[in-house]
Amino acid sequence: MTVTNAGAAQLLAAVREQTPLVQCITNSVVTNFTANVLLASGAAPAMTDIVGEAGLFAGIASGVLINLGTPTPEQREASREAVAGAAEAGTPWVLDPVAVGALPVRTELARELVAAGPTAIRGNASEIMALAGAGAGGRGVESSDEVDAAVEAAVALAQQSGAVVAVSGPKDFITDGQNAVWVDGGSELLTKVTGGGCALGALIAAFLGARGEASALEAVAATHAFYSLVAERAAAKAHGPGTFAVALIDELSSVTPDDLAAVTSISATTTSEN
Amino acid sequence: MTVTNAGAAQLLAAVREQTPLVQCITNSVVTNFTANVLLASGAAPAMTDIVGEAGLFAGIASGVLINLGTPTPEQREASREAVAGAAEAGTPWVLDPVAVGALPVRTELARELVAAGPTAIRGNASEIMALAGAGAGGRGVESSDEVDAAVEAAVALAQQSGAVVAVSGPKDFITDGQNAVWVDGGSELLTKVTGGGCALGALIAAFLGARGEASALEAVAATHAFYSLVAERAAAKAHGPGTFAVALIDELSSVTPDDLAAVTSISATTTSEN
Amino acid sequence: MTVTNAGAAQLLAAVREQTPLVQCITNSVVTNFTANVLLASGAAPAMTDIVGEAGLFAGIASGVLINLGTPTPEQREASREAVAGAAEAGTPWVLDPVAVGALPVRTELARELVAAGPTAIRGNASEIMALAGAGAGGRGVESSDEVDAAVEAAVALAQQSGAVVAVSGPKDFITDGQNAVWVDGGSELLTKVTGGGCALGALIAAFLGARGEASALEAVAATHAFYSLVAERAAAKAHGPGTFAVALIDELSSVTPDDLAAVTSISATTTSEN
Repeated sequence: MTVTNAGAAQLLAAVREQTPLVQCITNSVVTNFTANVLLASGAAPAMTDIVGEAGLFAGIASGVLINLGTPTPEQREASREAVAGAAEAGTPWVLDPVAVGALPVRTELARELVAAGPTAIRGNASEIMALAGAGAGGRGVESSDEVDAAVEAAVALAQQSGAVVAVSGPKDFITDGQNAVWVDGGSELLTKVTGGGCALGALIAAFLGARGEASALEAVAATHAFYSLVAERAAAKAHGPGTFAVALIDELSSVTPDDLAAVTSISATTTSEN
Repeated sequence: MTVTNAGAAQLLAAVREQTPLVQCITNSVVTNFTANVLLASGAAPAMTDIVGEAGLFAGIASGVLINLGTPTPEQREASREAVAGAAEAGTPWVLDPVAVGALPVRTELARELVAAGPTAIRGNASEIMALAGAGAGGRGVESSDEVDAAVEAAVALAQQSGAVVAVSGPKDFITDGQNAVWVDGGSELLTKVTGGGCALGALIAAFLGARGEASALEAVAATHAFYSLVAERAAAKAHGPGTFAVALIDELSSVTPDDLAAVTSISATTTSEN
Repeated sequence: MTVTNAGAAQLLAAVREQTPLVQCITNSVVTNFTANVLLASGAAPAMTDIVGEAGLFAGIASGVLINLGTPTPEQREASREAVAGAAEAGTPWVLDPVAVGALPVRTELARELVAAGPTAIRGNASEIMALAGAGAGGRGVESSDEVDAAVEAAVALAQQSGAVVAVSGPKDFITDGQNAVWVDGGSELLTKVTGGGCALGALIAAFLGARGEASALEAVAATHAFYSLVAERAAAKAHGPGTFAVALIDELSSVTPDDLAAVTSISATTTSEN
């Protein structure tokens, strides 16, 4: 399988044509930003996260995000419902295990959800390492590890879970356990705006939902490549994190498939086992 | 009754003079945007949505919004409290039945709340049709129907409930069951920012709270006319949905009653029964 | 003790060097804005507000904010956990008693939390007066009293509780019960953006967490002086409350310790008892 920017461009076009409906069960800090990221990109957000509706909606949605940033009891139960509904309907779903490792409630839930078979898992290096059981993991919500240090854990987690695993950082590493790619670009300002990573998780669900015959690895890599290009362009217009966040939304709307095909941010690599 | 832009201008002036206190029980996605829309327009927001406080506060508030976007068990109970408190105190209240029809928990609650006598109900065409029991209604959170198709349902819902019913779209239709108006203007960018409709519901509560001797129909129409003019001005300054949302807040603060009187966005019509 | 802008500048430098981790249990309206204010200023936010994690995290965090804006049952219990965890670990914590006085659930909780010994309490004049038991207090979420009227109540509350007490207004009053300062500057636009005061509470927790040998009074005064300068600069770039909020985030990131040392916004005073 070759994963390329040309392929990413086709997937962006598919998102724009299909307007995938993305159900987000996500933390209270980033709901608004996440919904605006999806809308600007061409997807349709729905934050259906209550018991009695979450499972049903996962059957209607094109893709589902489960983000563990502020997992209230209601959201934990709704997440279980949504995962069951997604499994029954064949809806792709993304797990974002925010701050896993350091905090017990979400760590236990994250392990349970990994066992339920997410289509993709995204996080920073510390989160992916903690979820893979590689060492103690990070403490708190920020990564204390480099992406390079998480490569082995990401491959192992992908092989254990069957999910595509993505590690965000200055360069992003994405693997399905057999194949792997790096995506470069982006902006350091993304780490200065809350929800930069969380919204990426929602966007991955949109690309997965619109991917057609493409593989999940291609869809996840395409999302990272799109987001990185958008962040670079937004950073060029920003005077700080406030104007950056606003410009990011504008650029999500204005970057075209041709723009994405014109850069070479995706590079194939091999996992340590190949 | 004649509903005019001149009358709308007087109501905007009343909002600016009275700073109506608007209690919002609304979804987690749009709380921040909604509060900023109210503040910029000259109203005062209060998101008092917990059991034990919501009913009491509805007696203090100038107007109440109940938006069913993410109705947690706590919010459902607080909504019932607030409606009872509003009824006792004579506080006008607005129902925004987000995504009703497709999702069972909120649909049941919406029917219960309609029976409790809201002053106004606002939504998109699919939501109003679902609430009126006209066909299957939409699925998901976006409207799959045109405003024209919802006119009959809106009139019927207004007659059944006693509420003024407003249907948002490229042109907005507003009726009290006897009289009706269309409001044009606005911007398609409003559909690309999350909470565009939800914040309008809060603003309707502000105008209702400051309306004095004006009718509820006049107050709802005035809110739509104000919001449409603001959106047009913001769109003229925007480079995409990010800058549009920021400009919208600025324009809510800067559009004057004279500006609103100078356009002719409200046109009277008759309901199908007159 | 002399509290000066030069000292405030040193504390801002300490925040930038240490990246204090600030746990926020705060209301649903301002989570996003609060997190972005902390990130832009150089701190690291974590909205860990669920039972089973909040207490543990308060032991890891550099500072904790408890804001009572929308206190759900889950947050009320998590707040008690966090306060116990902070006490055990010696983590400084800030209480923001939003709308206390008018609303019974939060008022009871606020009294309980004051008795648990916060490092600092911040609010508007009506909130501080209500918490000190001085008269009926305000009604609703906006202050109906002037800062001057709250000076005596603030001093009394500081002496009763052992906390530094800060009253926000056109000029801010800050006292530890023995010493007191006024901080001027700022912008009226701060009252037109939701969360302007709430985010200040989170920033106080950041400064407290990075203060080293400085007193809590110095840290709270430094936060107010920093925030006021930032608001003035943002107001100079704004065309309304929308662009003001965006510029505020940019300026939080760009104002330097030297900028803060170059103004004279802090003036020492004495309490009525000295």
